[in-house]
Amino acid sequence: MVNEKMRRLGANRSVIRDLFEYANARRKEIGAENVFDFSLGNPSVPTHEDVTARMISLLQNQPPASLHGYTSAPGAAEVRQAIAAYIANAYSAECSPELIYLTCGAAAALVCALSALLCAEDEAVVFAPFFPEYRVFIENTGAKLVCVPCKEPDFSIDFTSFSKAVTNKTRVVIVNSPNNPTGKVITEEELKTLCAILKQKEREYGAPIYLISDEPYREIVYGNVFVPYVPRYYNNAAVCYSFSKSLSLPGERIGYISVSPRAQNAAAVFEAICGAGRAHGYVCAPSLLQFTVAECLGKTADFSSYKINRDLLYSYLCETGYDCVRPDGAFYLFVKALEKDAKAFSERAKKYELILVPSDDFYYPGYVRISYCVPIDTVRRSLPAFKALMEDYAREKR
Amino acid sequence: MVNEKMRRLGANRSVIRDLFEYANARRKEIGAENVFDFSLGNPSVPTHEDVTARMISLLQNQPPASLHGYTSAPGAAEVRQAIAAYIANAYSAECSPELIYLTCGAAAALVCALSALLCAEDEAVVFAPFFPEYRVFIENTGAKLVCVPCKEPDFSIDFTSFSKAVTNKTRVVIVNSPNNPTGKVITEEELKTLCAILKQKEREYGAPIYLISDEPYREIVYGNVFVPYVPRYYNNAAVCYSFSKSLSLPGERIGYISVSPRAQNAAAVFEAICGAGRAHGYVCAPSLLQFTVAECLGKTADFSSYKINRDLLYSYLCETGYDCVRPDGAFYLFVKALEKDAKAFSERAKKYELILVPSDDFYYPGYVRISYCVPIDTVRRSLPAFKALMEDYAREKR
Repeated sequence: MVNEKMRRLGANRSVIRDLFEYANARRKEIGAENVFDFSLGNPSVPTHEDVTARMISLLQNQPPASLHGYTSAPGAAEVRQAIAAYIANAYSAECSPELIYLTCGAAAALVCALSALLCAEDEAVVFAPFFPEYRVFIENTGAKLVCVPCKEPDFSIDFTSFSKAVTNKTRVVIVNSPNNPTGKVITEEELKTLCAILKQKEREYGAPIYLISDEPYREIVYGNVFVPYVPRYYNNAAVCYSFSKSLSLPGERIGYISVSPRAQNAAAVFEAICGAGRAHGYVCAPSLLQFTVAECLGKTADFSSYKINRDLLYSYLCETGYDCVRPDGAFYLFVKALEKDAKAFSERAKKYELILVPSDDFYYPGYVRISYCVPIDTVRRSLPAFKALMEDYAREKR
Repeated sequence: MVNEKMRRLGANRSVIRDLFEYANARRKEIGAENVFDFSLGNPSVPTHEDVTARMISLLQNQPPASLHGYTSAPGAAEVRQAIAAYIANAYSAECSPELIYLTCGAAAALVCALSALLCAEDEAVVFAPFFPEYRVFIENTGAKLVCVPCKEPDFSIDFTSFSKAVTNKTRVVIVNSPNNPTGKVITEEELKTLCAILKQKEREYGAPIYLISDEPYREIVYGNVFVPYVPRYYNNAAVCYSFSKSLSLPGERIGYISVSPRAQNAAAVFEAICGAGRAHGYVCAPSLLQFTVAECLGKTADFSSYKINRDLLYSYLCETGYDCVRPDGAFYLFVKALEKDAKAFSERAKKYELILVPSDDFYYPGYVRISYCVPIDTVRRSLPAFKALMEDYAREKR
């Protein structure tokens, strides 16, 4: 009597959410300081102070009826202009305000872009491990998700598999760099190879293949790591961006889609995005947030604690004998489980109050994801627990 | 190469939006004070001062990482509790925080509720005239919209037609009171008759029929008009509410779905709503707004100018010879066009700088909608134009 597909989606809480609830219960039992909860990707650092100041200033000085009024569906004209100007300047890339669509965060951006580009029976290629909701968003359009596992140990792209996976049904390829859950950043060389394959496939099949760059972690990189701007390397590109992580505003739901002016049928793609926004009930992105981020482009929250956490965890876990993917960005560490079954490993880690997400939910077996967007002190105090977990497995082998 | 259905949805700007753009152009040509733009339902009054104060206080006093962090998908627990307590108290209705789902406004609420309840081949019954996006939202689920025109001249429900329209395929009926575009409020007697028919049909077909009450205009009523609370009259009910109009916050996208605890399969319905939220990319409703409205429940913007506008327009237009539906609520006046073709009438009204929305878009011919959520002065100065338009038609008849 209800839509059973939707009910199942609603009933199957993600493993991440389950672990988070377990951690909450455990905090109550033994005290928050004794639980090492690495489950959620919820930024732990405050937003940039200019964001707060800007919001307060808008609330104090702008007429409320216009500040909180409907904007046009793709966003307020001045906000779209500011974003396009920022992109053009920061990435030396062509960008048009007419092709910027403000969204309620990256999830809405992906839903609108995928619904705009995919039809039933089409295929969308994604690289595993990947953000679990990709599957939900793609399958909700009636299209098929085609999965290309990355190569161990560095989780670079397997171009042989990729090349085989792209068929005449492929309409969309999604890249996510810096990556959730591995922290991997796609290098310029990798991106060039990827784009060369796609261009060759477009010629072969005589149809555009759109490359969607999902980049909520764009600014969160460590050291001198370069994150190539996808539309500079490939014409049929759209960027799905979110301010959730860059400005620590995940609950506020603000992001955008930027369609490359060089994309084939760019205007039609944009129209379809507008149509998808309508069909999904997105009237406009939250207006106060639109006007706020327009003034804070290029600013970020202070990520220095993420860097400290990454360095602490990565070097300590490597020293202790864990196999880790070196994270150049985002705030995740992808660690090989000490037994084949990542769920069993995650379960045993609970003995040491370590809350680690098994990688199966990211459609890649045998690993756990550590979200280190937590206070530095939590990471410091967790290190002996990781050691004890390693020793637990070592004892077993003896 | 794009999803053509979505592209068409995006390309076909609504007539309302076209008229609004025309009015914008005209304002530049002849001055804003000379254009009588009654096209958009964008509240003209500021939000309640407590809303602004509350937002500023949250921004100044709450830790940003939690204020702007992800809430749980259906909303922050304390916000859901506050809303449930408010409903229970204000409407003496059973209400459970476990069945409250915060949304990005009423459009998102409708999309999630309809996607949760409808499957392909199902039918949803709506009363015409109706909010045009109902068709988009219903058809996007694969279900069929079944239209029951209201009765002239008072736009009450035609129960004979309604009774025929409800079949064993009907899963959902939508009511919208106070109504957009007529301003009609469903009386308690009407609602009782409607519910009696639905209960009888449920028994006849042995399956629940869910009644969705879309009520963004609940608080905007004139005089001692009573707006019955639907879940008190019918068990299988869900309310889609928005703070857009009550608090003049349409751009901020904040509302909720409340599933009646008495509804058959209430928990499954709620799960399906959560699943629909996931599928459509709604991660959570904007967090700052969630915490804000929780403290402002029962407060409203000052609607006194809407009342003055209604009285002015309704009495003047009636005196001048127009046939108007008496609006007991919302901020719309539904006026019979002076010729059969409402579009032609709307076109001729432009000669007098009157921007009126033809009713065809609301799936009801022969009328225009006047959105009188505008400054009182605009209404006052528009009256001679309405008179001139009437005289224009009178001259023709002579």
